[in-house]
Amino acid sequence: MSYELHYWPTILGRGEFVRLALEAAGAPYVDVARGRDDQGQGVAAMQRTMDDAAQPHPPFAPPFLKDGKILVGQTAAILHYLAPALKLVARNEQARVWTQQIQLTIADLVTEAHDTHHPIANSLFYEDQKAEAQRRAADFCRTRLSKYLHWFERILAHNPAGPRHLVGGRLSYADLSLFQVVEGLRYAFPRAMAQAQAKGLALLVLQLHQRVQAQPRVAAYLRSPRRLAFNEQGIFRRYPELDLV
Amino acid sequence: MSYELHYWPTILGRGEFVRLALEAAGAPYVDVARGRDDQGQGVAAMQRTMDDAAQPHPPFAPPFLKDGKILVGQTAAILHYLAPALKLVARNEQARVWTQQIQLTIADLVTEAHDTHHPIANSLFYEDQKAEAQRRAADFCRTRLSKYLHWFERILAHNPAGPRHLVGGRLSYADLSLFQVVEGLRYAFPRAMAQAQAKGLALLVLQLHQRVQAQPRVAAYLRSPRRLAFNEQGIFRRYPELDLV
Repeated sequence: MSYELHYWPTILGRGEFVRLALEAAGAPYVDVARGRDDQGQGVAAMQRTMDDAAQPHPPFAPPFLKDGKILVGQTAAILHYLAPALKLVARNEQARVWTQQIQLTIADLVTEAHDTHHPIANSLFYEDQKAEAQRRAADFCRTRLSKYLHWFERILAHNPAGPRHLVGGRLSYADLSLFQVVEGLRYAFPRAMAQAQAKGLALLVLQLHQRVQAQPRVAAYLRSPRRLAFNEQGIFRRYPELDLV
Repeated sequence: MSYELHYWPTILGRGEFVRLALEAAGAPYVDVARGRDDQGQGVAAMQRTMDDAAQPHPPFAPPFLKDGKILVGQTAAILHYLAPALKLVARNEQARVWTQQIQLTIADLVTEAHDTHHPIANSLFYEDQKAEAQRRAADFCRTRLSKYLHWFERILAHNPAGPRHLVGGRLSYADLSLFQVVEGLRYAFPRAMAQAQAKGLALLVLQLHQRVQAQPRVAAYLRSPRRLAFNEQGIFRRYPELDLV
């Protein structure tokens, strides 16, 4: 049976972290909100699932995953739930918790990257919080980005199984998520990322990014029409005025 | 053997979610950074653990927990890891994932509450981002707070085991965390919370808060000197200008 992924159909956003895991594992899934209304899919179907009064485990927001009768929301919880079946996490509990911890740190970085363009309110346009966004983005590019990159470099360098993966010696969902974060950061902050690269702050992270990109199923997915382009409705947006000058 | 909790010693912050779980379970723990330097504790000991180059699983930031040789960071991951041993989560996997999902939504709310006073940068003083904070806090009080409260009310109302707990018929770490969030919100936003209460937006949430507060071990902890008061260095700060007018 197919998994059902529910997420906003026109952006990569947080749904992409789940989609990448499903694609990298070759797992069958239906991308519900990208489907057609007249086939019982589309955004309306996603909204119906969220609003269903009979649902004892309603998600607070997309993305969420349906696996038969099980409904799971929150990106990190979805990945933690899915990963054993997709073989995208090691079997022992300690490695599973460590992978989750990395994913939660990635989630914090994603929220901070989002808030560079929406520091005041999600319900307002970027244009209505542009001045605040420039202040927040300047701090992000100057201090937060390198703090996160440094931590990822450190854990790659100290992985007892070597720096090819974040956890152990095999691909995990955290590797896939870090790939997506690098993609997003390069899109949104090309100058800040170029500077970090020039300073050697992301050597192992960028090698991991390359390795994930070359993974056959990931590469096929990235070439497919299922992979959307980044755009200015998503989490990672290219507003040159928010990048390093 | 005792658990070691590592967190900033003068604030409740995110460490309190872990501390409440340990206290409610009557688990032995050492609050390392609150200890004395000359006994190998204190903030210096916490910092040493974070900076230890030999540590393959370094936490990105406090809080983190040491359980023998296992080191776990990220509040939601710590609670997910601890809860089975503390009997603060149901045994079946589906309930465990649902509890985690609620905790992650609580974590999002906590980040948003924090960012009401620090919308631009953690590294700046509140006074240097006060204008931005007022804009962000206004949105939080007007739209975000009620959205979260509504979701908690909804899942309490739809809990098949009844509205006394968030998950099933027993106390879980998510209940303890929701208690702490209500404490924090009432401290930081007394007027917004009074309005939500008057409008009946948090009926079941506030009943749960009362019930957790009356739990014997929690009540004893709250009366003890181990329970710090909220203050203006933590996540929930009382700045009247950020509350509803």
